[in-house]
Amino acid sequence: MATKKRLSGNMLIAQSGGPTAVINQTLVGAVLEARKHGEVEQVIGAMHGIQGILDEDFVNLGKETPANLEKVSQTPSSALGSVRKKPSQEDCRQIFEVLRKYEIRFFFYIGGNDTAETTHLIHQYGVEAGYEFRCFHLCKTIDNDLRENDHTPGFGSAAAFVSRAFMGDNQDNRALGGVKINVVMGRGAGFLTAASILAKTYEDDGPHLIYVPERPFSLPRFAKDVKKVMKEHGRCVVAVSEGICDSRGTPIIAKYTKEVDSHGNVQLSGTGALGDLLATELKKRSGITRVRADTFGYLQRSFPGIVSEPDAKEAREVGIRGVRFAVRGVSSGSVAIQRKPGARYMVTYECVPLKNVAKETRHMPDEFINEEGNGVTDAFVNYVKPIVGKLPTMARLKNHPVKKRKNS
Amino acid sequence: MATKKRLSGNMLIAQSGGPTAVINQTLVGAVLEARKHGEVEQVIGAMHGIQGILDEDFVNLGKETPANLEKVSQTPSSALGSVRKKPSQEDCRQIFEVLRKYEIRFFFYIGGNDTAETTHLIHQYGVEAGYEFRCFHLCKTIDNDLRENDHTPGFGSAAAFVSRAFMGDNQDNRALGGVKINVVMGRGAGFLTAASILAKTYEDDGPHLIYVPERPFSLPRFAKDVKKVMKEHGRCVVAVSEGICDSRGTPIIAKYTKEVDSHGNVQLSGTGALGDLLATELKKRSGITRVRADTFGYLQRSFPGIVSEPDAKEAREVGIRGVRFAVRGVSSGSVAIQRKPGARYMVTYECVPLKNVAKETRHMPDEFINEEGNGVTDAFVNYVKPIVGKLPTMARLKNHPVKKRKNS
Repeated sequence: MATKKRLSGNMLIAQSGGPTAVINQTLVGAVLEARKHGEVEQVIGAMHGIQGILDEDFVNLGKETPANLEKVSQTPSSALGSVRKKPSQEDCRQIFEVLRKYEIRFFFYIGGNDTAETTHLIHQYGVEAGYEFRCFHLCKTIDNDLRENDHTPGFGSAAAFVSRAFMGDNQDNRALGGVKINVVMGRGAGFLTAASILAKTYEDDGPHLIYVPERPFSLPRFAKDVKKVMKEHGRCVVAVSEGICDSRGTPIIAKYTKEVDSHGNVQLSGTGALGDLLATELKKRSGITRVRADTFGYLQRSFPGIVSEPDAKEAREVGIRGVRFAVRGVSSGSVAIQRKPGARYMVTYECVPLKNVAKETRHMPDEFINEEGNGVTDAFVNYVKPIVGKLPTMARLKNHPVKKRKNS
Repeated sequence: MATKKRLSGNMLIAQSGGPTAVINQTLVGAVLEARKHGEVEQVIGAMHGIQGILDEDFVNLGKETPANLEKVSQTPSSALGSVRKKPSQEDCRQIFEVLRKYEIRFFFYIGGNDTAETTHLIHQYGVEAGYEFRCFHLCKTIDNDLRENDHTPGFGSAAAFVSRAFMGDNQDNRALGGVKINVVMGRGAGFLTAASILAKTYEDDGPHLIYVPERPFSLPRFAKDVKKVMKEHGRCVVAVSEGICDSRGTPIIAKYTKEVDSHGNVQLSGTGALGDLLATELKKRSGITRVRADTFGYLQRSFPGIVSEPDAKEAREVGIRGVRFAVRGVSSGSVAIQRKPGARYMVTYECVPLKNVAKETRHMPDEFINEEGNGVTDAFVNYVKPIVGKLPTMARLKNHPVKKRKNS
């Protein structure tokens, strides 16, 4: 992270891991910023992350028009393609052969904690090989589980999708009743599932129950919780993280996978399985007949037009700041979003060590989860609201009474 | 349907069946129009369809402010609540007791073909009982399967959701590869699934394959189709109607339900099951490893903010026209949307006999489905485009080449 002398050379940028609705904002932010700095000569994009470096599958981003880049920035999912790949030592060796050949002095890798780890590995290899370059991780993940970050680009927009989905679904459930379970992305961290709370306009709106992976999930307790809500509201909307686990840390989905896999056909790692299982178990344990489950799936991370404005802005800024840190002579790091204390929502962009962001994930702090472990706190609402930005409002009829008439 | 003398009295309106994103437009259209006609005295809403009539669970819609009604019109799902209930003769008797008591002379029931059937039953009962009233069905259904209609309110907005979902998902699939199967609502009619075609901007965009219930579905043929697309594009996005059946008319989902139910736990009537089954079968039959399935579920019909503008406008108009027909003295009917022939998209609102819309559903005409039964035709695209309205555009990088460098 130490500031070194200024370097000149070409720039290479790539995207990795799960796409988001604003990951191209970061790409475009970096590409347009690079044009402002004489140190950066050619701006090259690698297709499908480090796989594109190994294959020399490159595109010339310097020739993209600002108009097309702006359109790309508003298009969801990774415009350069993505990959899930951890480089071996041999991969690193090859990568550096390519970096040398193309005189790459600025490397930017957009992604989550796995991507940060890869960036860290590449940086370490470069240092050991005595290759002078600037090496940066540009954060993104809808899971919001990167350490050192108050929140991450992509999360706000995914949360905007989830909030809206629950708003609509709460209306649907109001109209037809029963129990509705929605499974939300998030293997280890419950932030995205928890964001469903923003769907509430009225006191009796759903989600009425929220289960995150940070708390052990128990089917009997779940059934009891739902029955209590049914008694109060005559209906129940539930938000569940895909990664919920039992008290021994075994994912709920995995417990059932084994059971059924031994019998044959049914794939339970498929996306609909957890929701269907919870619905079946709930029916069995509660006697409630109308129980439905939806799994939001990939829609959450790449739905066109459902974007949090602050998220889009911040994602762009992360790309811009990465390039600025690099040309200013910072040798490596991850661009992290941190929040200024105080009532007004303001963020800063910090350059943190790669190893601090790599691998391990961040979880929801205790203060964000209610005591019963089936909901979130006001502290979480205050945290998440400005990240998600403006949401539509759901209106109700005022239910003015009609004077009862007597039978004639 | 014969035009009779003008009636005066109170108006009762209710909603039934699956909600849509614009079903409240129809409600608000009717309520605001009623205020313009002296014949209509009190405007009453029944909660949860005919159940609310039986329970005299009424709200006074006359006291709603236009401002709140406008907000409600933009809120998805049935503001008056919904129900799935076919009235018995005893129910009809009770309903007419209530209609008499509250001096209801104008009855409007918003819903699909089941709702049209109920409206028809109520109308018949009223005629036999010698009760003078105006009785109208106001069409809605995301399935787009009402006879006499070119298309139905709710379909355009659901189709706008489905198109956008496929747009984003196609980008996701481009980034990470493999096969992605998306299960779309539609038990008997494939219109909504077929609308996924609007997601295509570039020739190689998905959906690459579209399966509708109007054509028999075969797993071996499906696997063959996917392998062909994989060979051509290296990836594949598939749209499947939830209602696909085999050549004997057995729903694919039902065939597997039995098989697995005998082993116990897994509920296959749950929404994720069909997608998971198709993914498992495809992996087995094709050897492709990355196969994912999502089921769009209820999001399709009630996602806030994803509305087709023509759909919202037409849904409102259906409510307005229903009231106009009624006060003009037409005794009963269903308000149907028909399309004027010609290049420019224009619709008319016709009053058609209730029995023509009741019960039976409409299917996709042959000219809309390709010969192979795995895609749609240009005729369908021309049909559906104006119904769905404006969609976002997905942009790509231009992929300007980078000059290959030789190893030093």
